[in-house]
Amino acid sequence: MSTTREIFEQHPGKPSTVDGLYSEHEVRLANRNAGAILELLRHDVTPTGAHYLLTHFDVPMLDPARHKVSFGEGFERSFDLGLEELRQLPQVTVPVTLECAGNGRAGVSPRNHSMPWTEGGVGTSEWTGTPLAPLIDRARPADGTVDIVFTGADEGFDSGTRHFYGRSLSRDRIAELGVLLVHEMNGAPLLPQHGAPMRLIVPGWYGMASVKWISTIEAIPTAYQGLQQAKNYRYRNHPDDPGEPVEEIRVKSLMVPPGIPDWTTRSRYVEHGRYEIVGRAWAGRRPVAKVEFGIGEEWIEAMLSPATVPSAWAKWSVTWDAKPGEHILRCRATDTDGNTQPVDPRWDAAGFGNNAVQQVRVFVSAGTS
Amino acid sequence: MSTTREIFEQHPGKPSTVDGLYSEHEVRLANRNAGAILELLRHDVTPTGAHYLLTHFDVPMLDPARHKVSFGEGFERSFDLGLEELRQLPQVTVPVTLECAGNGRAGVSPRNHSMPWTEGGVGTSEWTGTPLAPLIDRARPADGTVDIVFTGADEGFDSGTRHFYGRSLSRDRIAELGVLLVHEMNGAPLLPQHGAPMRLIVPGWYGMASVKWISTIEAIPTAYQGLQQAKNYRYRNHPDDPGEPVEEIRVKSLMVPPGIPDWTTRSRYVEHGRYEIVGRAWAGRRPVAKVEFGIGEEWIEAMLSPATVPSAWAKWSVTWDAKPGEHILRCRATDTDGNTQPVDPRWDAAGFGNNAVQQVRVFVSAGTS
Repeated sequence: MSTTREIFEQHPGKPSTVDGLYSEHEVRLANRNAGAILELLRHDVTPTGAHYLLTHFDVPMLDPARHKVSFGEGFERSFDLGLEELRQLPQVTVPVTLECAGNGRAGVSPRNHSMPWTEGGVGTSEWTGTPLAPLIDRARPADGTVDIVFTGADEGFDSGTRHFYGRSLSRDRIAELGVLLVHEMNGAPLLPQHGAPMRLIVPGWYGMASVKWISTIEAIPTAYQGLQQAKNYRYRNHPDDPGEPVEEIRVKSLMVPPGIPDWTTRSRYVEHGRYEIVGRAWAGRRPVAKVEFGIGEEWIEAMLSPATVPSAWAKWSVTWDAKPGEHILRCRATDTDGNTQPVDPRWDAAGFGNNAVQQVRVFVSAGTS
Repeated sequence: MSTTREIFEQHPGKPSTVDGLYSEHEVRLANRNAGAILELLRHDVTPTGAHYLLTHFDVPMLDPARHKVSFGEGFERSFDLGLEELRQLPQVTVPVTLECAGNGRAGVSPRNHSMPWTEGGVGTSEWTGTPLAPLIDRARPADGTVDIVFTGADEGFDSGTRHFYGRSLSRDRIAELGVLLVHEMNGAPLLPQHGAPMRLIVPGWYGMASVKWISTIEAIPTAYQGLQQAKNYRYRNHPDDPGEPVEEIRVKSLMVPPGIPDWTTRSRYVEHGRYEIVGRAWAGRRPVAKVEFGIGEEWIEAMLSPATVPSAWAKWSVTWDAKPGEHILRCRATDTDGNTQPVDPRWDAAGFGNNAVQQVRVFVSAGTS
């Protein structure tokens, strides 16, 4: 009798990759896991439905009226929390920029065969919910608790391991990061694909920490060894490297590509003249200190309008004097710790944390079209 | 002095394609033009934000308080219509299934280098607005009018031609099809990426007819020769074939893939046993007559729950007795005119109208995992 696990191992389906060519699996992932629409970066808050998605398994069907988050194993005062109870707790609304840890993976060579993000794995929403730390205190973790474990209702295989998606944080981190248990996005109940009815938001960290469709919260006396914590989401120099955990979002910026596009290639066309280029920059929990706009080898400093909170992206703008010819436009942010985006992608075995500068090819005409 | 047009022609960027391998342009399009999330087919109405997108150019930034639709050229009583005026006209709310004409393009060999849809280019929303025909009557098209032309605010290059996206319909067709000028989707104002503040909905036709970000409506005395009407969106046997216009949606069906997925390959895994398989079927303006569910070479008829209107998809379900081993599951709909989905994709030079049956690979284990 073969188990699901055994069948899986006979069909691993993890091909190697070739720069600039993508498999059907990658195209399916790219279409299912929607990315940012760059011109919508003009909005402070990403329009609902245009926020990026990264769904490891299937979107679960949970009944908002019945689903509960169980503060269970390892707590001295276990309880279940439904949506109505969550609404009665102190409410906060915070703008948070989330970015997928794999954003930019398509630029790493050779890339890991996974979701082939170019630069679309980012978005900003206003999340409404309650701080998680007081709820953990209320449940009272048993003495000797090391990790608080968060498990979603989404189940599947990854790297041959069947599991529900799960992540952990220490109690100190939950308080320090201002982790939220949320039920609304942009003033409306969470959409099914964004974690309804309740999910975590971990401001400043890559999206893998903000567990969707949260079902159970547990306190455990050892470091959590779940696949998505101990094996995936680690910076590694080679596949066997134990690596370092992926945590805070690295400094990054994007621009709204100027001019008008060509349908299939997305190349840009403008007439010569002066244009305002606008974009966004973010750096996890640190404020953005500076954004530079690059034309060829020249970099000029952009105007920066900081966000109200470091967890949300800042707006920047610059005037571009577009001269006839073909140009590569770039943008580069620096955070208050002095970290700057690299021009070339840094190597990572799984393609995590690539914060290399965006490059936009623009053709500037001398005349009018 | 080179014009934008001349620069474009030096950089056509339209590579040939290889089955199963995709270019970076295609991956970018797949990520930007979000597709259906198949498990959300359980919902009668696609959750907002999970409806497919096909944005030819950029999403325009239009101010809902100021934008007007101009009933201009070719009308005897020209007028401009703003959002507030539209809201005061008779309102209807209709569920409509929209499908991209290029849905299934990735299954056509060789495929056109364009948006590489597998099966995700479909969704159903409840659209609120007013019937367009009385507005056309009110504007009074000049004698000898042949076509009514609809132009959006979205501009770009396609096939080397710079233009605002435009389509046309005859007056008779506008009335016959029940075309709507809408401002709400699922009870909320249109999202920017779905055509805000006003768009057309053409029930029963592929999505290219439902012009988004509509700006001008004109009456012309000749057949409209716009690129997206006369050159694109035509069924052609070879690139030089004048072809036939793409219009009504062909009969099609999709299932929610059973079991749990593998993250990157989306292969499905279930334990042996009996499962309810659910899905959707639609056929443009015609009701769906029958849906069959296929396991290997065997086809069994599914239970069909018709939609309230033919323009919205019907729900179907069937019990699957999952036996250990590897299976290809398929579904096949037939409409009331007797049209049935083909098992193999039909050839089209641009990959339009591919309504071949969906195939889902499932591994069934004999034991438990």
